[in-house]
Amino acid sequence: MSTTAAEQAAMRRALELAATPGVPLGPNPRVGCVLLADDGSTVAEGFHRGAGTPHAEADALATAGDRARGTTAVVTLEPCNHTGRTAPCAQALVAAGVRRVVFAQSDPNPAAAGGADTLRAAGIEVEAGVLVDDARTLNRVWTFAVEHGRPFVTWKFATTLDGRSAAADGTSRWVSSLAARRDTHRLRALCDVMLVGTNTVAVDDPLLTVRDDHDQPLATQPLRVVMGERDLDPGRRIFNADAESLHLRTRDPKEALTQLYARDRQHVFLEGGPTLAAAFVQAGLVDEIVVYVAPMILGAGRSAVADLGITTIADALRPRITDITVLAGDPDGNVRFTLAPGED
Amino acid sequence: MSTTAAEQAAMRRALELAATPGVPLGPNPRVGCVLLADDGSTVAEGFHRGAGTPHAEADALATAGDRARGTTAVVTLEPCNHTGRTAPCAQALVAAGVRRVVFAQSDPNPAAAGGADTLRAAGIEVEAGVLVDDARTLNRVWTFAVEHGRPFVTWKFATTLDGRSAAADGTSRWVSSLAARRDTHRLRALCDVMLVGTNTVAVDDPLLTVRDDHDQPLATQPLRVVMGERDLDPGRRIFNADAESLHLRTRDPKEALTQLYARDRQHVFLEGGPTLAAAFVQAGLVDEIVVYVAPMILGAGRSAVADLGITTIADALRPRITDITVLAGDPDGNVRFTLAPGED
Repeated sequence: MSTTAAEQAAMRRALELAATPGVPLGPNPRVGCVLLADDGSTVAEGFHRGAGTPHAEADALATAGDRARGTTAVVTLEPCNHTGRTAPCAQALVAAGVRRVVFAQSDPNPAAAGGADTLRAAGIEVEAGVLVDDARTLNRVWTFAVEHGRPFVTWKFATTLDGRSAAADGTSRWVSSLAARRDTHRLRALCDVMLVGTNTVAVDDPLLTVRDDHDQPLATQPLRVVMGERDLDPGRRIFNADAESLHLRTRDPKEALTQLYARDRQHVFLEGGPTLAAAFVQAGLVDEIVVYVAPMILGAGRSAVADLGITTIADALRPRITDITVLAGDPDGNVRFTLAPGED
Repeated sequence: MSTTAAEQAAMRRALELAATPGVPLGPNPRVGCVLLADDGSTVAEGFHRGAGTPHAEADALATAGDRARGTTAVVTLEPCNHTGRTAPCAQALVAAGVRRVVFAQSDPNPAAAGGADTLRAAGIEVEAGVLVDDARTLNRVWTFAVEHGRPFVTWKFATTLDGRSAAADGTSRWVSSLAARRDTHRLRALCDVMLVGTNTVAVDDPLLTVRDDHDQPLATQPLRVVMGERDLDPGRRIFNADAESLHLRTRDPKEALTQLYARDRQHVFLEGGPTLAAAFVQAGLVDEIVVYVAPMILGAGRSAVADLGITTIADALRPRITDITVLAGDPDGNVRFTLAPGED
């Protein structure tokens, strides 16, 4: 079996539909679907708009109505097989009389997988793996979280050129430039958890909301999480009404991630402090590192990175650089490094 | 008075001649000269090839011979007025019957200045300041050294993303990637002094020569200088026969630069250690900073930058970035920052 040029083109279109801007991220993957007639023409399109709304296949089938019969469904993700907030898509495709299903990524979620088998059992032709890399990239964080059973962790820190996050007297406003701080908010908005330790809340009292370039909070906010066993003053800003917040009473990174995954959280933005970040690094639970380097030299002061238990150069963390960006329009020339930890 | 299009074009050509690749830097400025006939055509060209060889004007006059009479001499630097290893150019131009002299940069060297006055006194038309910025850039370091009466100082350091130059056990091979180390040798070759402190010689025993990509020493080497009052083992590698070396028995940056300038040295490459660099920073005697940032994290170990006496964020060094380069073909992704210290 193989795919036609029309099916390949339809898959590219389905990926576009899945990536429709403004679709809430939520805990669900982005999915797009195109129904093709025998002659390769498009009968209907659909995409998933977020938790509680129809899946992409259901969206396309609703548009197509009776015209779905005999079509080929081209979907970016294996049609689901379980009854969640919506009926299983595999059965909906069977019921609609779809003749053939082409999909990209197999569903990594054991609770939802098995859709391809259900379709085949009903006599439908199934082709898997078409443009699978693009589909995985589209739902990079969701795929990671489902495959690992825990959220993806992005560790962000800001530093001077000589590795300091604050001067000797504790002052740190600002190490990062305005452009770097705005860029940080843009990255925060891609996550569903902002994570800090109790010490950071006690000492720095951060707000931890996501704000736009005019310092106004966005409509959708990540969950603000502080972890650690220490009691905290309920008057700290993290507990205000600007967004949800949660105190996880554990110092164990693995335990914290397990609890957050149980709450359908998939992407943790770890901002501090250094001791908490070090605990995640040492537990092997950092999946991406974002570093803002400010062209500033202090010579003394607080280290941006805490002791990681590394004593010799051979054991240094040597993450792979995935991107280096000089922040646009930044008079202070901050540079953002994006890094992926190595295999070891 | 003003210049003609032919004179402007000739000045651009003279700047090209001055920048001829392979001309030894030595203590002399790069200078180019073009002799123009009345119709704007070129009669002769010349450039200076380094200390002990004819100046650019003399070089062009020698080529022109009798045809120099009545020409306009277009020179990148004010013709010199003093008798050094060659006769004064101002008088040579007068003797050759040159009618008019157009030059770019006035000679900042008090011992050589006054050429324009000599020419005018002999009845020659003189036009100064044509493309002066290009001429100053061409001899950026020489101009700085002559104007300040001391060498230009480039401070170079290499660091991990978290500000470390070595791990806790002292191991540091390699923080910088091969591409960064090669790039460092390229920058060393542009200087005429390699400077370190006695502690660096005692502890690290660096060779401090400039080597090519095959680790072979270049034919021309900067002077290797170690400064500090401590006695050193004459068997240290800095004192070997690979290049000249010098032990300056002072800990005072200003005193060291005065002594090096007296030896016709114009560009110091300051490589360490951190304590010596801090002394230069605190004395306000760093003119350029080159930082190689390796995408590596240690979390502990030797700080790349020593205490500079800065205690609060408002007093941080905030150098201006003049260049950020991701080193080409570097699998380890080292990034070079070039910075100019601020005014304060």
